[in-house]
Amino acid sequence: MTLNETHDATLKSWVSSANDGATDFPIQNLPFAAFRRRGTNEAFRPGVAIGEAIVDLGALRQAHPFEGAAADALQACADTHLNALMALGPKAWSALRLALSRALREGSAQRTLIEPLLVPQADAEFTTPARIGDYTDFYISLHHATAVGKQFRPDNPLLPNYKWVPIGYHGRASSIGVEQVFPRPVGQQRPPSENAAPAFGPSQRLDYELELAIFVGQGNPQGERIALGDAETHVFGLGILNDWSARDLQAWEYQPLGPFLAKNFASTISPWIVTLEALAPFRAPWSRPQEDPQPLPYLSAPENQAHGAFDVQLEVLLTTEASRARQAAPAALSRSNFRDAYWNVAQLITHHTVNGCNLQPGDLLGTGTLSGPQASEAGSLLELTAGGKQPLTLPWGETRTFLEDGDQVIMRAECIKPGYPRIGFGACVGTVSAARP
Amino acid sequence: MTLNETHDATLKSWVSSANDGATDFPIQNLPFAAFRRRGTNEAFRPGVAIGEAIVDLGALRQAHPFEGAAADALQACADTHLNALMALGPKAWSALRLALSRALREGSAQRTLIEPLLVPQADAEFTTPARIGDYTDFYISLHHATAVGKQFRPDNPLLPNYKWVPIGYHGRASSIGVEQVFPRPVGQQRPPSENAAPAFGPSQRLDYELELAIFVGQGNPQGERIALGDAETHVFGLGILNDWSARDLQAWEYQPLGPFLAKNFASTISPWIVTLEALAPFRAPWSRPQEDPQPLPYLSAPENQAHGAFDVQLEVLLTTEASRARQAAPAALSRSNFRDAYWNVAQLITHHTVNGCNLQPGDLLGTGTLSGPQASEAGSLLELTAGGKQPLTLPWGETRTFLEDGDQVIMRAECIKPGYPRIGFGACVGTVSAARP
Repeated sequence: MTLNETHDATLKSWVSSANDGATDFPIQNLPFAAFRRRGTNEAFRPGVAIGEAIVDLGALRQAHPFEGAAADALQACADTHLNALMALGPKAWSALRLALSRALREGSAQRTLIEPLLVPQADAEFTTPARIGDYTDFYISLHHATAVGKQFRPDNPLLPNYKWVPIGYHGRASSIGVEQVFPRPVGQQRPPSENAAPAFGPSQRLDYELELAIFVGQGNPQGERIALGDAETHVFGLGILNDWSARDLQAWEYQPLGPFLAKNFASTISPWIVTLEALAPFRAPWSRPQEDPQPLPYLSAPENQAHGAFDVQLEVLLTTEASRARQAAPAALSRSNFRDAYWNVAQLITHHTVNGCNLQPGDLLGTGTLSGPQASEAGSLLELTAGGKQPLTLPWGETRTFLEDGDQVIMRAECIKPGYPRIGFGACVGTVSAARP
Repeated sequence: MTLNETHDATLKSWVSSANDGATDFPIQNLPFAAFRRRGTNEAFRPGVAIGEAIVDLGALRQAHPFEGAAADALQACADTHLNALMALGPKAWSALRLALSRALREGSAQRTLIEPLLVPQADAEFTTPARIGDYTDFYISLHHATAVGKQFRPDNPLLPNYKWVPIGYHGRASSIGVEQVFPRPVGQQRPPSENAAPAFGPSQRLDYELELAIFVGQGNPQGERIALGDAETHVFGLGILNDWSARDLQAWEYQPLGPFLAKNFASTISPWIVTLEALAPFRAPWSRPQEDPQPLPYLSAPENQAHGAFDVQLEVLLTTEASRARQAAPAALSRSNFRDAYWNVAQLITHHTVNGCNLQPGDLLGTGTLSGPQASEAGSLLELTAGGKQPLTLPWGETRTFLEDGDQVIMRAECIKPGYPRIGFGACVGTVSAARP
């Protein structure tokens, strides 16, 4: 993806909060969400973030400010969610981004039209940016797969297929949300001895998983695969995903068909989707250790190796009832980088469709937990605490092996490079409440 | 569920084809589908089968023939699919069934209103009866789990969790359809030797799986579980499901997170959903061998043991290019009965939601392959051919281990008991075409 005038690092917006170096949302970002004013019964509608504000695309489209492909794309923002815009494809997304970039720049004549349509983010509430038809979760961190493998299969952590197959499985779409507060899941746990009945009750090993969310734009007809070179034209953008996991439920249920109740009680995503075009300045080469097998031909291309990866820095933060009561700063649990994943975005799209499986606009692909090569870069408590054997001590004195009731997990992502405004993803926030009796 | 006047075995319809003992659709059945006239661009709309005809509920609702709860239920048939009707719950479904039963009986004064709204099934085409949000596949035949387990894990066919956990996993909703014709899936297969690259190409071990489809009616809010005693009030009805499986893709990809590309290229369902109320005369006791563990308390109740199962007879038929060319009768591959499953419908709903997972109207739960206790009752070719080692000889002389291009799999289901009209499910029909180059 080539850079264009929307990536000019010197651009400033007439929305002054967008020019503050600390914002997630400078004019070079322009991510999309579905929002309404908090506490109202308004319909949700698409919006674009600029500094501390949201451009209400539902209202903007009624003002017909743009022409050509940008106007067509804006007309696709008539719905509560982004699916119709997602279905239009990258030319439409790019035209809308360019028109919004021009309209929001310092000196734009469209300021008088748009300024009344801004909604402060602080006054907004969000829903999932898309109606998510299907949710697939991958497993693309070799470091996570190895660490988790050790917990479940100490003698055989990394299975023979791992370096050939982008391992994935289907997750639950209905229980995906933003800013979720959910009760601790209840379920069966491994019996204490071979002939005993399983334990039953609230999960004692509730964990988060730090992931990125890949939103499908244009779909593909059932039966037709997507070639690697076309794969990214089917991706609208990236968000953050916390794929909560009940490790004890999982350990008992997951053989032979994979995770089920250990995952499907809740999955929290960030409200904002950062488009692939906004991430173009942060492309990175994708490669493998020399000694590892190279991907099969359908998953390999020079272009993909040259810049198939993205340099996105990720962070997990934790607050607890105690920390919030004393207004302590959130505890930083770990940081990692999407660049270190074993497979990349285009490969996941191509692999998912190689058998003819159809993707649809708004489908969600999770990357799987993005743990990095260092122990401090682990994307879950399972890894950070060595399966609960090495408790973490939080800055305010509490300890944690797994999550306790009232714990709130905050995930952030950002792209940083010298001489370019920081691109942020906003936050993915979820909170565990007590199990229902 | 108690019997009522709609279950009167002596009822006859003024639609004479419904009174033929061979029909799937006597007036005691009244299953639902979404249809339109074949070859038109009409909107799909709900319909109810009676004999060889369909009552067009989209047209009928505009005639306002009913009162009270039946009228409200009919108004929920304004959409292309059944989701809105499904969301109303069993009182509404029951009221609509009663009104339709009375209107379609011999001597009904509403015949003059309804007769012009009948569409011959032979002139109709179908879509999925619901917009399916999430698809879950279970694994509730002990016989199938044991047989398949032997293929993948000869030393350990039945895992320790099987008799405690109704094993399930999430499948792909986007690729579910009716009357599907789909290309043979392509993908990675296990390497010929430990250090070799995987094979890649069209699946050589493509199979069908004989299942029933359970359609969710009313959903549950996220975080709230459904008690066993309430579970069936959340079920709209049952259809037939062919959960095609590429065994060679599955064997290589499925560890550790379960089946993915081996399944998600296509899943074929029957157009018709037979309601639980129509199945009330065919309830059966549910029990386990004395020596097996009894379910945990959340999956156990006297009521559920008394009649938690359904006596539904299933059948798999096959035609091939050669058999169709010579107009040979389809080959009957196997028969089995839903009654023999290790878990029942109510248990699946309750288990699925015990952790707070939310079900939604139109969600689909597959039972998993319904193989019976006898070898001839196997619900897949994997079982019938001992993993491809014992080819079947078809009546017209061809042999099969797994499916070949052009093969068409036809699944049927029916309920039979003396003195009561036969209740049929229609057919679930899917056809394999050649892999895309």
